[in-house]
Amino acid sequence: MVNVPYTLYHYPLCPFSRIIRLALSIYKIEVKMVQERTWERRADFLKMNPGGTIPLLIHEKTGLAIPGTNVIIEYLEEIHSSHGKQNSLMFRGIPERVEVRRLVCWFNEKFNDEVTRNLIGEKIYRRFMAKKLGGGPPDGLAVRTGIANARIHVRYIGYLIRRRKWLAGQALSYADLAAAAHLSCIDYLGHVPWNEDEDAKTWYARIKSHPVFRPLLSDRIMGIQPPEAYSDLDF
Amino acid sequence: MVNVPYTLYHYPLCPFSRIIRLALSIYKIEVKMVQERTWERRADFLKMNPGGTIPLLIHEKTGLAIPGTNVIIEYLEEIHSSHGKQNSLMFRGIPERVEVRRLVCWFNEKFNDEVTRNLIGEKIYRRFMAKKLGGGPPDGLAVRTGIANARIHVRYIGYLIRRRKWLAGQALSYADLAAAAHLSCIDYLGHVPWNEDEDAKTWYARIKSHPVFRPLLSDRIMGIQPPEAYSDLDF
Repeated sequence: MVNVPYTLYHYPLCPFSRIIRLALSIYKIEVKMVQERTWERRADFLKMNPGGTIPLLIHEKTGLAIPGTNVIIEYLEEIHSSHGKQNSLMFRGIPERVEVRRLVCWFNEKFNDEVTRNLIGEKIYRRFMAKKLGGGPPDGLAVRTGIANARIHVRYIGYLIRRRKWLAGQALSYADLAAAAHLSCIDYLGHVPWNEDEDAKTWYARIKSHPVFRPLLSDRIMGIQPPEAYSDLDF
Repeated sequence: MVNVPYTLYHYPLCPFSRIIRLALSIYKIEVKMVQERTWERRADFLKMNPGGTIPLLIHEKTGLAIPGTNVIIEYLEEIHSSHGKQNSLMFRGIPERVEVRRLVCWFNEKFNDEVTRNLIGEKIYRRFMAKKLGGGPPDGLAVRTGIANARIHVRYIGYLIRRRKWLAGQALSYADLAAAAHLSCIDYLGHVPWNEDEDAKTWYARIKSHPVFRPLLSDRIMGIQPPEAYSDLDF
């Protein structure tokens, strides 16, 4: 049996987990993947992470539990740079790092509040949650709000990418991973308005065709099929 | 006229801004403070920070705009350590930094969702917002939920502080600043259940009596007086 250094607790359509899955894959860090349905509040999971959230990365040798996208990103950067490795997903210069972190926060907070929560929250999470925990059919107003907000964000991506090669600068960074992680979840539901901005679509086609993206495109949620374009590289 | 290197856009009872105010004060970084009522969506502010959120730190010499608590914290750590300074609010070891960031996230996300949003959001922000933007009288259910949740968090602080000198370890860190920033805002409304945990109260008395805390205790919001205990060091 091979010893894998890390375990990642995640959920297939959780964008926060997807950012970390992409980063681990780019950094070629081996990881055992475990699906966690956080809404079930499993006691053994809460022991490792009292906050009850995913993603949760466990360093198997030391048992160190690293919870949350930001905490994991900063951890990965610290071990990455302490190994003297280049090509960081966070860049090197201080203003450049501000821009990467600003955009990660943009997608994880603003995009999440305005789009992801309204679509993935309503159509995926509520479908599987018990009624007493807030489960039930999606709220139509929330879904319509999410779809309308997605247009503004796709245009913002287009605006950025007309000024730079990648979202935060001249190389791939966590900003691209965060944007692509959220969009890919929405895309699973067929709700990304790709016709809104041709440059945003071209940027997404570029990141989607990266080998690290493949496992995300083969994720399936029971009972919900993505549209054909979801895993089509020429969507 | 003295040139101050930074400007901080903030709001007096915004816990996210308070964390940064405390950190800047501890690091003795001079800053010009500007109050921003983000819900008014001022055009000049949105130009500096398209996300429209506070805190926003501006480095005056370069014009670099650093938005959001996490982004500012990481920025401060990077300039602090590049100046070779010790006594970081983030500690030095990798597992210790994970714990600081985990707790910052705990208060900024979990505590904020469960307590701050229900109390400060309902009782302060909605009071000053136009009705069409969601302003109005506080939602009684949200306020009761916030008060009930605050008890659990105060007990968690007590649990941590019985095992360590400060929240994330043996020295003051951003974890303490984050917890104290949120609690101090709730305390302005008199809603912290200090009788819930004597050790949590002792920890708060310790941080509250630190000189950097004084400006926070003299903040006043028009039309809402804090209870006497708010600024009393022997509350």
